[in-house]
Amino acid sequence: MTSADDVREIENLVRERADAVGLRQSEVLLSREHPDVLRFPLLPPTAARGRASTAAALSAWFTGYADGPGYTVHDIEADVVGDLAWCAFFYHVTGVLASGDEVDMWVRSSLVYRRIDGVWQIVHSHESVPFDAGTGQALISEPPPPIA
Amino acid sequence: MTSADDVREIENLVRERADAVGLRQSEVLLSREHPDVLRFPLLPPTAARGRASTAAALSAWFTGYADGPGYTVHDIEADVVGDLAWCAFFYHVTGVLASGDEVDMWVRSSLVYRRIDGVWQIVHSHESVPFDAGTGQALISEPPPPIA
Repeated sequence: MTSADDVREIENLVRERADAVGLRQSEVLLSREHPDVLRFPLLPPTAARGRASTAAALSAWFTGYADGPGYTVHDIEADVVGDLAWCAFFYHVTGVLASGDEVDMWVRSSLVYRRIDGVWQIVHSHESVPFDAGTGQALISEPPPPIA
Repeated sequence: MTSADDVREIENLVRERADAVGLRQSEVLLSREHPDVLRFPLLPPTAARGRASTAAALSAWFTGYADGPGYTVHDIEADVVGDLAWCAFFYHVTGVLASGDEVDMWVRSSLVYRRIDGVWQIVHSHESVPFDAGTGQALISEPPPPIA
């Protein structure tokens, strides 16, 4: 059974996540990761396990931006059964890298949460962009299509 | 609560999927998709909704291969609570395209299943490779790292 309150709680966790990125609050983001989280990140490595790997990735991410990252979430879809939940959404990342390059990127995100002792924690995350099979280039600037 | 039997059932669905790709059994693959499935595919579009879009994508995929696609799954991780399940794994695609180009690609896959009237159906799928931030190239030939 899906409870509307539970679904709203997951949607709010995604919004909390967006706010925490904007404020560079790594500790908030890490508090929502399960110690053994399995991540399929946007950038290498292909996969990573554990909260410590997330901490290192967040640190590198934030350090890489001279301005930003701006981070807004869009089109959140969520479902909950008991103590298991998933959600999918798009996020829009903007800013200026330490190198001076501007970032304006749309990313697909899927998160799986487990509620443990009453606290929702991310056990799996998958973030990506599609790529062009002809050129092999990642398609980082594709706004999400209408999918309703 | 997670039942070991339920987890095995999800793992078997992933193996069934691999077998069905190898045999080009689109009808088996489509029977496991929820009518309103939300897909984040490896290749454009960024997102797609519904079983008909999967049918079109499968048709284009199979037609694109002169030999293959070979498809093997690796490192399946799965969890189930009640009628909701998720799994994550890598798949290795090989073959020769109609263009003559050889394919040898490792892909990350995350699937979310809902059990409806006793039948597990995919409500969300996310398939991708990471990309190199420096070159913008999709990293299609990265074998999965050890993540145990």
